[in-house]
Amino acid sequence: MAEVKSDIEIARAASPRPIQEIGEKLAIPPESLVPFGHDKAKLSADYISSINGRPDGKLILVTAISPTPAGEGKTTTTVGLGDGLNRIGKKAAICIREPSLGPCFGMKGGAAGGGYAQVIPMEDINLHFTGDFHAITSANNLLSAMVDNHVYWGNGLEFDMRRIVWRRVMDMNDRALREIVCSLGGVSNGFPREGGFDITVASEVMAILCLATDREDLRRRLGNIVVGYRRDRSPVTAREIKADGAMTVLLDQALQPNLVQTLENNPAFIHGGPFANIAHGCNSVIATKTALKLADYVVTEAGFGADLGAEKFFDIKCRKAGLHPDAAVIVATIRAIKHHGGVAKEDLNTENLEALDKGLANLGRHLRNVAKFGVPAVVGINRFLSDTEAEIQAVKDYCAEFGVEAVLCEHWAKGSAGVEELAHKVAALADDGHAQFRTLYEDSMPLWDKLRTVCREIYGAEDAIGDKKVRQQFADYEAAGYGHFPICVAKTQYSFSTDPNLKGAPSDHVVPVREARLSAGAEFIVAICGEIMTMPGLPRTPAAEHIGLDENGEIVGLF
Amino acid sequence: MAEVKSDIEIARAASPRPIQEIGEKLAIPPESLVPFGHDKAKLSADYISSINGRPDGKLILVTAISPTPAGEGKTTTTVGLGDGLNRIGKKAAICIREPSLGPCFGMKGGAAGGGYAQVIPMEDINLHFTGDFHAITSANNLLSAMVDNHVYWGNGLEFDMRRIVWRRVMDMNDRALREIVCSLGGVSNGFPREGGFDITVASEVMAILCLATDREDLRRRLGNIVVGYRRDRSPVTAREIKADGAMTVLLDQALQPNLVQTLENNPAFIHGGPFANIAHGCNSVIATKTALKLADYVVTEAGFGADLGAEKFFDIKCRKAGLHPDAAVIVATIRAIKHHGGVAKEDLNTENLEALDKGLANLGRHLRNVAKFGVPAVVGINRFLSDTEAEIQAVKDYCAEFGVEAVLCEHWAKGSAGVEELAHKVAALADDGHAQFRTLYEDSMPLWDKLRTVCREIYGAEDAIGDKKVRQQFADYEAAGYGHFPICVAKTQYSFSTDPNLKGAPSDHVVPVREARLSAGAEFIVAICGEIMTMPGLPRTPAAEHIGLDENGEIVGLF
Repeated sequence: MAEVKSDIEIARAASPRPIQEIGEKLAIPPESLVPFGHDKAKLSADYISSINGRPDGKLILVTAISPTPAGEGKTTTTVGLGDGLNRIGKKAAICIREPSLGPCFGMKGGAAGGGYAQVIPMEDINLHFTGDFHAITSANNLLSAMVDNHVYWGNGLEFDMRRIVWRRVMDMNDRALREIVCSLGGVSNGFPREGGFDITVASEVMAILCLATDREDLRRRLGNIVVGYRRDRSPVTAREIKADGAMTVLLDQALQPNLVQTLENNPAFIHGGPFANIAHGCNSVIATKTALKLADYVVTEAGFGADLGAEKFFDIKCRKAGLHPDAAVIVATIRAIKHHGGVAKEDLNTENLEALDKGLANLGRHLRNVAKFGVPAVVGINRFLSDTEAEIQAVKDYCAEFGVEAVLCEHWAKGSAGVEELAHKVAALADDGHAQFRTLYEDSMPLWDKLRTVCREIYGAEDAIGDKKVRQQFADYEAAGYGHFPICVAKTQYSFSTDPNLKGAPSDHVVPVREARLSAGAEFIVAICGEIMTMPGLPRTPAAEHIGLDENGEIVGLF
Repeated sequence: MAEVKSDIEIARAASPRPIQEIGEKLAIPPESLVPFGHDKAKLSADYISSINGRPDGKLILVTAISPTPAGEGKTTTTVGLGDGLNRIGKKAAICIREPSLGPCFGMKGGAAGGGYAQVIPMEDINLHFTGDFHAITSANNLLSAMVDNHVYWGNGLEFDMRRIVWRRVMDMNDRALREIVCSLGGVSNGFPREGGFDITVASEVMAILCLATDREDLRRRLGNIVVGYRRDRSPVTAREIKADGAMTVLLDQALQPNLVQTLENNPAFIHGGPFANIAHGCNSVIATKTALKLADYVVTEAGFGADLGAEKFFDIKCRKAGLHPDAAVIVATIRAIKHHGGVAKEDLNTENLEALDKGLANLGRHLRNVAKFGVPAVVGINRFLSDTEAEIQAVKDYCAEFGVEAVLCEHWAKGSAGVEELAHKVAALADDGHAQFRTLYEDSMPLWDKLRTVCREIYGAEDAIGDKKVRQQFADYEAAGYGHFPICVAKTQYSFSTDPNLKGAPSDHVVPVREARLSAGAEFIVAICGEIMTMPGLPRTPAAEHIGLDENGEIVGLF
């Protein structure tokens, strides 16, 4: 432990190559890269269209056990595996989400991997990057302004003012904006009403951008957004407000995927970042599809654990985009497994085979779940110094019972050199062609049954429950023609149940559904199970207080 | 009139050169340009520091008579003159403001010049451009979030909740946000209070970014922002909130000037765009100073007419930045002069020498005013087809009485070929070295006397008046140590008086001051004289309703 460097030290010691050279690795002509600085670029829309007919590479999903405070390292594994595949001679690219700006000023830390498995330039990626989130904020809020403006000038569409459901957004942790009354101050400012702001990543526009297959699909989905209801409960859409065209214009550049590089100068697409609770939590369809045309192996990531992240990746993103994943990596740490077995955070460095055995139930259920989608898996054990040989062997033995290999990964400390074995196994698994991807349920299944299927098959719950009002919402959405949408469950990521303290693999619990929400543009029904915060607050001492520039113009305090 | 092309048609028919080639014209090494796409770039901070010791080129201000609905063409003249100077063999660059995003969705039309005197890429410039305004929005709103968060966690700085004066901003025309009550919804969301949003260009952060000379000065000014007051009326600053460092980080890239090109491939810096009423209405000091190191002639622009725009350019920007303008161009049109003489908009195409003569009083006062700053001027008559020879001669004769030349300009129709004469005259005027720039008043003059001096000397007013409360505000600011700040008058741009309908050159009017506001970071005192709207609304049929992408991905409806 003599000289453990911080993420930012490692990132600043890297030797980034001009982004055109990174593009060259994927045979992207330099003129098809729209540069943002010397180390970031967007792929031009024309170029993306031009490669549409090419065959697809293999798609590999990185997911994880249920997250714990011990940390799993899903993003580092995604980055490390991408580097590892390149190291063993494969043409591989990674696809991950863009981080949100707001949270950077709350808690210290960014989202660009860590150790020797990072994407760079990490400061840019965590701050304004290429402006995608700002564009989403603008598009979301233009729609809001046009809704209130419509009401101001006579309300020709007959909005019920109490049922305007479209909220404004800001990429900031600002609890003061969660609930507001707007349009105060008299006649010239409109009709006072209750409203509020979410953080930008929670905007339906974000989910739409990430699921849209092209400009036309983007505009169609934006137009379908339901912004409010009339007194007779009929919906009013963004298309009726005539906002879809201008929103598309604001989002046109944001729709193009961003190319950056890993510390080892391998190509990384970072594009879109929807919430993983009220939305599907995956990078954009366009980025994944484009990467599949350019690389032989594409390593991508889904939010939270496999119960939420992988399920939504399969049942929402892959279903909608026609993607067929070839292999999955389930990331786990010995520490996190022991935590699921009941070990307190401060005792995780001590060998505890009994707790490990107990906690493995969590991993086991995720393995069973992923198999239900027909996708072969391998377990990546993200190694910590405190892991003992006996513990590692116990995990390997456990996984073997499922016919799954568990592989030690040391990308955090060693970069691609630490993940060669995983790279070989994953490549072999993907090349085998054993994947027979299927979604968990058909489009035609009734909405409530879809929800029950997820709760029973994936969460190990006895059932889903909801009061009459909630059940009626599901029925109403079906009657309104949204019955073919998939379900997007918003619940705690820390447990298979809705109780974040129920670690391991709880069974026979019930999932209470508090509310259903329609995302008519993103094309899914959100089932809210528990408290979901769509606008975070800042802590008592925000990280922002210590962020600044040093005498060389380098950022301090951000990481 | 057979084939008058629209601005957007002309812009799309242009042949843009790679931005590196435009930089080359100013001998900027390509590695010092931070590209945003192929046709936009920022100058790197290191490069800007490196040229600090070079001698300055000549600074030319383009200003105008009091604006009328007839239009004057100040930006087109700025762009045209820049092209004209290049055409006659001078090394010239232009410096103009960045347009605001929000208004594009209200009324049709952008702000990038027009006809054959435009800057490109006009769509980008009018939409997200290089993200500067988004960065300003983020920095402004981070400060807001930190203020409310501070109160939430105990209010250690003892804000009087009723006296939090820092408002949030959004780059959107959204009247519903003008006045809000925030922090509703109970204990976890904070303490309800009144607040509101301005449009981003009205943020003090915008004024600060445009007046800051470097990163350190930026941080110092941000720290000085007064965000609210305690019950004892003592101010609380952004520095006490510890937001200045993180705000500086968010603004670091935005502080670097943007380089684009004119239709004739000449260099144009477009950077910053503060309101011209509650702020000083000029592009950034950094852009102007940098351009002066790189070009022999720099043509820049100030907002509104010369009474507001040029006065603030001289008394705020030049005073603070140590700039010494060498010449001024006062733009006028025959039509606008006739409008000042009482001709209705629909009759402006008819020769009317009597009205012209009457309206020339407006131009005359602006000529006298500019002379008070010791800057030699030339009048640019922005030609319209309806102008008659007799009318043109009358304007020339009138100007000659002031010892000023009036030159016909046809850049709108002919590009640089239409503005050669003006270019020669301006270059000669600037080269003459006759300019003896001086501000209108000294820093040491009492605040109220500064205001009276502007009202009397520039507006031709008998006096400024204000009730006891307003006068007390001026006295309080002096007592608090802000007495050395210049005054920034916020009043209608349509008249020398505070009545927008008083055309020509009204005299003996009084200027009622309604309110004084402190911009402690921007370092001026705003005197509010009349209704000033800091958050516009959308019209009944917003332009946004007709904006979209055509089948080729080109924007329609924006211009």
